[in-house]
Amino acid sequence: MSQFVMQEKKSAEHMRAFAEKVFASDAKDEDVRDEVSMFDVVDDCPILNEEQSNHCHHDDNLEKRKKMMSRARESLMDDKPAYLSVPDFQRVAIIGDFATGVTMDDFELACNGLHRALTIREKYMKLAIQRFPRTVSQILAGIDGRTWKVEDEVHPVFTPPYKAGEDPFETKTLPENLNYVARMRDGVVHVYKDAQAVDKNEPLDLPFVDFNTFIDDMNFLISLIAQGPTKTYTHRRLKFLMSKFNVHEMLNEMEELKELKNNPHRDFYNSRKVDTHIHAAACMNQKHLLRFIKKSYREDADRVVHKLNGKEVTMKELFDYLKMHPYDLTVDSLDVHAGRQTFQRFDKFNAKYNPVGASELRDLYMKTENHIDGEYFATIIKEVAGDLEDARYQYAEPRLSIYGCNANEWTKLSGWFNKHRVHSSHLKWMIQVPRIYDIFRAKNFVPHFGKTLENIFLPVIEATINPHTNPELSIFLRHVTGFDSVDDESKHSGHMFCTKSPKPDEWDIVKNPSYTYYIYYMYANIAYINQLRRQRGMNTFQFRPHCGEAGAVTHLLACFMTADNISHGLNLKKSPALQYLYFLTQLPIAMSPLSNNSLFLEYSKNPLLEFLKKGLVISLSTDDPMQFHFTREPLMEEYAIAAQVFKLSTCDMCEIARNSVLMSGLSIEEKTHFLGEDFLKEGPAGNDIRKTNVAQIRMAYRYETLTYELNLIKNCLKTD
Amino acid sequence: MSQFVMQEKKSAEHMRAFAEKVFASDAKDEDVRDEVSMFDVVDDCPILNEEQSNHCHHDDNLEKRKKMMSRARESLMDDKPAYLSVPDFQRVAIIGDFATGVTMDDFELACNGLHRALTIREKYMKLAIQRFPRTVSQILAGIDGRTWKVEDEVHPVFTPPYKAGEDPFETKTLPENLNYVARMRDGVVHVYKDAQAVDKNEPLDLPFVDFNTFIDDMNFLISLIAQGPTKTYTHRRLKFLMSKFNVHEMLNEMEELKELKNNPHRDFYNSRKVDTHIHAAACMNQKHLLRFIKKSYREDADRVVHKLNGKEVTMKELFDYLKMHPYDLTVDSLDVHAGRQTFQRFDKFNAKYNPVGASELRDLYMKTENHIDGEYFATIIKEVAGDLEDARYQYAEPRLSIYGCNANEWTKLSGWFNKHRVHSSHLKWMIQVPRIYDIFRAKNFVPHFGKTLENIFLPVIEATINPHTNPELSIFLRHVTGFDSVDDESKHSGHMFCTKSPKPDEWDIVKNPSYTYYIYYMYANIAYINQLRRQRGMNTFQFRPHCGEAGAVTHLLACFMTADNISHGLNLKKSPALQYLYFLTQLPIAMSPLSNNSLFLEYSKNPLLEFLKKGLVISLSTDDPMQFHFTREPLMEEYAIAAQVFKLSTCDMCEIARNSVLMSGLSIEEKTHFLGEDFLKEGPAGNDIRKTNVAQIRMAYRYETLTYELNLIKNCLKTD
Repeated sequence: MSQFVMQEKKSAEHMRAFAEKVFASDAKDEDVRDEVSMFDVVDDCPILNEEQSNHCHHDDNLEKRKKMMSRARESLMDDKPAYLSVPDFQRVAIIGDFATGVTMDDFELACNGLHRALTIREKYMKLAIQRFPRTVSQILAGIDGRTWKVEDEVHPVFTPPYKAGEDPFETKTLPENLNYVARMRDGVVHVYKDAQAVDKNEPLDLPFVDFNTFIDDMNFLISLIAQGPTKTYTHRRLKFLMSKFNVHEMLNEMEELKELKNNPHRDFYNSRKVDTHIHAAACMNQKHLLRFIKKSYREDADRVVHKLNGKEVTMKELFDYLKMHPYDLTVDSLDVHAGRQTFQRFDKFNAKYNPVGASELRDLYMKTENHIDGEYFATIIKEVAGDLEDARYQYAEPRLSIYGCNANEWTKLSGWFNKHRVHSSHLKWMIQVPRIYDIFRAKNFVPHFGKTLENIFLPVIEATINPHTNPELSIFLRHVTGFDSVDDESKHSGHMFCTKSPKPDEWDIVKNPSYTYYIYYMYANIAYINQLRRQRGMNTFQFRPHCGEAGAVTHLLACFMTADNISHGLNLKKSPALQYLYFLTQLPIAMSPLSNNSLFLEYSKNPLLEFLKKGLVISLSTDDPMQFHFTREPLMEEYAIAAQVFKLSTCDMCEIARNSVLMSGLSIEEKTHFLGEDFLKEGPAGNDIRKTNVAQIRMAYRYETLTYELNLIKNCLKTD
Repeated sequence: MSQFVMQEKKSAEHMRAFAEKVFASDAKDEDVRDEVSMFDVVDDCPILNEEQSNHCHHDDNLEKRKKMMSRARESLMDDKPAYLSVPDFQRVAIIGDFATGVTMDDFELACNGLHRALTIREKYMKLAIQRFPRTVSQILAGIDGRTWKVEDEVHPVFTPPYKAGEDPFETKTLPENLNYVARMRDGVVHVYKDAQAVDKNEPLDLPFVDFNTFIDDMNFLISLIAQGPTKTYTHRRLKFLMSKFNVHEMLNEMEELKELKNNPHRDFYNSRKVDTHIHAAACMNQKHLLRFIKKSYREDADRVVHKLNGKEVTMKELFDYLKMHPYDLTVDSLDVHAGRQTFQRFDKFNAKYNPVGASELRDLYMKTENHIDGEYFATIIKEVAGDLEDARYQYAEPRLSIYGCNANEWTKLSGWFNKHRVHSSHLKWMIQVPRIYDIFRAKNFVPHFGKTLENIFLPVIEATINPHTNPELSIFLRHVTGFDSVDDESKHSGHMFCTKSPKPDEWDIVKNPSYTYYIYYMYANIAYINQLRRQRGMNTFQFRPHCGEAGAVTHLLACFMTADNISHGLNLKKSPALQYLYFLTQLPIAMSPLSNNSLFLEYSKNPLLEFLKKGLVISLSTDDPMQFHFTREPLMEEYAIAAQVFKLSTCDMCEIARNSVLMSGLSIEEKTHFLGEDFLKEGPAGNDIRKTNVAQIRMAYRYETLTYELNLIKNCLKTD
């Protein structure tokens, strides 16, 4: 048993205290820019340098190190793998000592910690029916001496595409009523066999992660990513990954290109790509919205479209009241585009959602709930979908909001969806939950945070138990593939999430809970709901929050535990340990450099290229075309700019496109069609270059690199 | 009389020697990157700093300085100008000493030199019927005590747009034969009344700049831009211009935006913009070319399209010979896109013009002269023009090549143009002349450089004298708006252009003449031809060479003397004096940052933003969409990326679009329609915001800033 595990048992309490201290310091520090956080490593730190050189001289554990080296020679430096379908290429191999300049003790400490972190994420993903890479699972099983079986793997369940003639809105095939009873318990939905079971407090036996376990795991992870040896080790591994890719690129770039040139029919243009992060309310570009407003006025000037101070008004009257005429409107007066004024000002950015600064127009054109039942908004979205269908190879995953402000929201939203038949084979729907309980509480719309959670999740579990009570909602949920958590991450609540935190029902103050608190409760509910839905053969939901766009590093930690994949992830730059863990678990990140450029980070400083080179799984997404993009094809604009600024190769671009399909809510059937039959396999075996246009050399490089890093941990932990 | 003018007279010879030394050193230096050139100033130069502080302490000429200050107060610090149409805004005024930290002697020296430089460019522009800013002419007249008259102004003459029903290819209205005789004399076309006049060597009295005058003017300018005080003064002025714009922007950005918001109907999307620099052979994007090749094969597989080793082959046979099938082609195998492999490698870039690396396909699809008489190329261009017509607000100025290799080129090119009726109201044609005499000479296609010039310019002057000998050429020339000079500027010939240089007819070595040599002879011929064409009421040609993309700084000097406007201009960064002169004369620069990004300079290091802020007149252009762009709208892609990376405001973008129209070969009629009736006026009076969407505040800022800088020179030179 390693020193680390012993230590750990002794000091569970001590660690908790430490974690809380770190957490507090992180939340406090975030206003102080350019200061080294507790999670970061500085390259030219003199203390570190001295430590390093000491390690080189007195080797603490020569025997162990030698043993490790010989083991490495066996397992890491195997003859190069013989894939059937990968052309020869030049591999980068490191021969000799591999502990990368840390002492054996530090190496063991780090590997133990990383191993436990991996097992934590594996557990959370399984419980929520979310993805976890097969390669990692196999290595983890190997470490524990278990046999990995493909049957143990879980996969999110998505509704397959509708065939010609099938009606996406038909209610006949809805499953029958289970007659269960659903209740919120401590902020999480629970299902009971009947009312009796409720009284006895005996919910169904659906596994989920309770509050205390979550806190314990979180505290462990906080300590881990703030721990010196782990920081140093992961920092060095990441630097190595970067250099290794640069060498790989230098040696094999032309070979990869050759593969692509010899690949008939497929190029970047007809490789499938998914806009993995886009808000429905801003999914059209500014010019499109402008044209739509003008057209609607030409056709509907005399139609009653709005209620103004209780009085019904026509569109003409509404525009008269706003003292403007749609004919005069331009994209300038529309003023929905983010300019220099929005940089570092999320508040100003949010105001840009109001065309001409008038919230009435936002209501009329960009809301599902208004005097015309969201008809215009539905039409705009269907036009955007039409453009995607015309472009053939592009898909998008728009977010619609559920606020948790009242219990009716789901009914209204699904009513809108069904009424206007807002369906396209090129759109996969997501639900975004804004973290704005504090606003509702201040207006006394909800008594406590628990009610917000109830409003969000109870209707979903009820529709899962009995799809017939609300058929429109049940139909809508078929089309929903996941949940997102959204808001300005740079606002922070100052609340520290710990065992002493109030339970949701007790959270009745106006202050917002912390990011992590939100994340845990969303995750716990989704996981529980997914368990029941899978049992019933229904589609499940992925948890894909906004995370690491700004704010504290701990946000990224909460999502490492809970999210299938995240949007943004910029702050991974601030924690090498977390960045390395995101790499090891191939946790996908939907990046939006154009959005960042308008809000948080200049384009050329975006870590996208760095992440891509190191082997993190990234995709490109537009976030808000209305605010950020200029052309008629926002997703292509996003790719084109990234390609130009970062000098991406075609292989890079196609790899990003492939990532976007993998992480998306597209169904198994669609992924098979777009990526190839074996897409669930990892590495070159899972890639069909004829469909993805990603070079097999690249796939082999990625796969071997990941396996190498995982084997470092495995070899360290293996008992002799 | 100032010290400078005296000195100058004494040392004309001395200066020539100095200029030649500088020239030689500049040509030699260009391989040594990051070294400070003779034209540059370094911000942290200790000698300069010390000089500066000395100047502050012992003021050499207190009386003079005081007088200058009071004069400044009168003329520079007038009450703010009262334009009718400019909203109030906050102006940046400098009160007090204005000689910006140089001694009075240095100030006078610099102002005298700059003044003479301005008069040189004014002379060259007039002689070639090219544009020169009215504001500058007025100030120059003021300095000399002349009265400026609007009638003295020259403007290039362009063919007005064809009205509905008019035939752009009709030959009936061609002017009659003048029965003059044309001959080359020392590399420049000359026109004689008759054969007798030829014998007597008595050409018509058309003014042009002779070789020796050009060399003298050039030598003066070389000395000027290498002269310490001028470098320091202009460097400081440019720094001031930058800071001034930053302050202006900070104070007035919202006011400018307000103007635009209140400007009905017009926004960036429907502001006219011209792609001022694009090569016809690469004017389609890669996807377009791919689609076209596939389509042509579907329709024409059995058509004879090519001659292979003397044998006629069908398209199918050609592709069989190339061992490929168009059905399998992708943009990857097409391989025309510039990737990372082309950076700093112009040679590799040029190879990208061959689809699938096969020059046969370049011949078939991208040449005017081939077995199918350039039919495919004409069709592709007409498709590109169709896209521009659909986009409504976009225009382009494609370049077609005349090599000067043989006397038939014009006939063939204009035959192609007329046969396929390659005309669109959204295209303005330019002729590009590649600087590759050395290749033709090596193959013995031409006996000397003079023959190349003859092949290029003699047919043009002959068609000008008698449009009926070659009606197709005469029609084509109506559509041509200018000449471009193209090739890799970083190759340098090592030849120094001086009075001892061989005349073109004596230039029979294989070595290429220098850039400046090419430029002078192109300019002299164009100027001469323009003189005659204007007399005849024909359209004239602008000289718009590629310049300053790479290579020696002196390229930019040659074009300061001769070009209406240039493409690229990156190297202005290396010479503050030239950069300041480009600013003072508002010499337009068509910049292509995406092209630079693939070839010479990373996007984020592009000086575009800096130039724009300082007030240089820049436009955006695509150069080669086939090689650089990804989307269906290359010009919009170019604007979008610049807007995103440089965070341009809408006003910036519309100002750039307005610049592009101004510098283009669009006719007076079109410019009036696109920019407003008074577009020939400068400053806010010349801007119609309803058409351009450029804020009047911005126009006033630009105008007042230019006037202020010019007045500094004027006040310095004014004798009491």
